[in-house]
Amino acid sequence: MNDQENSVKKSTVSPTFIRQEYSEGIRSGDTSGLCPGYAQANLVILPKEWAFEFLLFCLKNQQPCPLLEVLEPGDYLVRKLAEEADLRHCLPRYRIWRDGKLVSEPEDISEVWRSDLVSFLLGCSFSFEAALQDEGIPIRHLEQGCNVSMYRTNIPTNQAGRLKGPMVVSMRPIPESKVELAKIISQGFKASHGMPVHAGDPSLIGIRDLSSPEYGDPVSLKSGDVPVFWACGVTPQAVLIDSGVEFAITHAPGHMFISDLTSDELEKRDLP
Amino acid sequence: MNDQENSVKKSTVSPTFIRQEYSEGIRSGDTSGLCPGYAQANLVILPKEWAFEFLLFCLKNQQPCPLLEVLEPGDYLVRKLAEEADLRHCLPRYRIWRDGKLVSEPEDISEVWRSDLVSFLLGCSFSFEAALQDEGIPIRHLEQGCNVSMYRTNIPTNQAGRLKGPMVVSMRPIPESKVELAKIISQGFKASHGMPVHAGDPSLIGIRDLSSPEYGDPVSLKSGDVPVFWACGVTPQAVLIDSGVEFAITHAPGHMFISDLTSDELEKRDLP
Repeated sequence: MNDQENSVKKSTVSPTFIRQEYSEGIRSGDTSGLCPGYAQANLVILPKEWAFEFLLFCLKNQQPCPLLEVLEPGDYLVRKLAEEADLRHCLPRYRIWRDGKLVSEPEDISEVWRSDLVSFLLGCSFSFEAALQDEGIPIRHLEQGCNVSMYRTNIPTNQAGRLKGPMVVSMRPIPESKVELAKIISQGFKASHGMPVHAGDPSLIGIRDLSSPEYGDPVSLKSGDVPVFWACGVTPQAVLIDSGVEFAITHAPGHMFISDLTSDELEKRDLP
Repeated sequence: MNDQENSVKKSTVSPTFIRQEYSEGIRSGDTSGLCPGYAQANLVILPKEWAFEFLLFCLKNQQPCPLLEVLEPGDYLVRKLAEEADLRHCLPRYRIWRDGKLVSEPEDISEVWRSDLVSFLLGCSFSFEAALQDEGIPIRHLEQGCNVSMYRTNIPTNQAGRLKGPMVVSMRPIPESKVELAKIISQGFKASHGMPVHAGDPSLIGIRDLSSPEYGDPVSLKSGDVPVFWACGVTPQAVLIDSGVEFAITHAPGHMFISDLTSDELEKRDLP
């Protein structure tokens, strides 16, 4: 895709427009491939009682949990990644967690909002997919019209207070000849998980069956593809399960917050 | 000082040795000029109830509050900047704060320790003084055998939750011809406040009288010196006063934690 096409695509489907469609219920479904070039973000919302431990967890696990923005307790308006976007309904789908168990997946969280909730926005690997495509690297889940595959691994995270659990990764099948290039490009996007944590044999990081991801959709490898794994912002959801946090809200995997900042702009900013 | 003298000085007076002397009460007084080349750190200890807001405050104010290490709630052993150094007595002097007021300045805080306390270690500008000296920049407060001068300014910090207040700065008189060099050198020490926030007329940042610092000692300027101001890790103490935190412990200004890491090593590490 050349620069002109890219800028046309960006200007015709703006993040603000897409977020508005999600807010109004006109659009649904995951955000994979939407607004190419713009940064997307994972969402974790916790009671203030857990906020210190979670913020520390992010600082101790910057590859799966790169902090983009942290809101004040009770605040639901994103102010750095967008201009006052209302977090309670501008994502396509959320997950409500009670005592470490997933209890519902609503499209709006206004009814469960509480004044003690603290919202964290974390980088997402969707953000560097356009940069991979620009260098001729195919994104199989976009070709196949589905969400990315995500898996729990046996890679431990660094515990912070009561928060502990395994790293979750996203997987993209990459033609073997392009794996090094994919590593180099993604390394430049540190706010979006940076370089892969693993490439090749999935069993080495505790994944038994590539065709059965714990999150997202199964994605087929083409002949000559190598599975490449990036740290994933769904990691906090595995941590919620393992830590028994009494109440939490997250995005549904692949159903991200779409930022007004491009992935390149994100790298140049002081965060959070 | 040449490299050989420098390395001899480092090896004969190790940070571990100095911390032990402070712990045993054999040594007292500020840490200015001690263990040149090694990083020193500011200390802030708060109840867990305030820990999220303070951690967020540090992230939003990285120049005055560069995070070096955050301990788990209740833990008092420094593990990254040193090998299990006991924070309760290895600094020369502490300050106890109640309801935003300074109530005592003990040399040991074991008796007031609580299991809900969270300790934060922040970078300190003492850490780059050896690098300035190595390039021929005089450090006047060391020549005059006293603590550095520190001042409350009119520079606001970025509020985080209930935490707000003015930035505190340290001041070093620098010969006018060397001010640019001092800026360039200190810029490389981001974990130790980085480049100055101001050089020249003190009134422009709200300082009325250079000879009456709010913290530390008065330091005389020599003819041709320009006052140069760096963001200071005493900023949280001004914030404690302005935010009315009910209980806190900090170091006494200039009476720092001395790390086992050199200032150069600090820059290369993933923190906190």
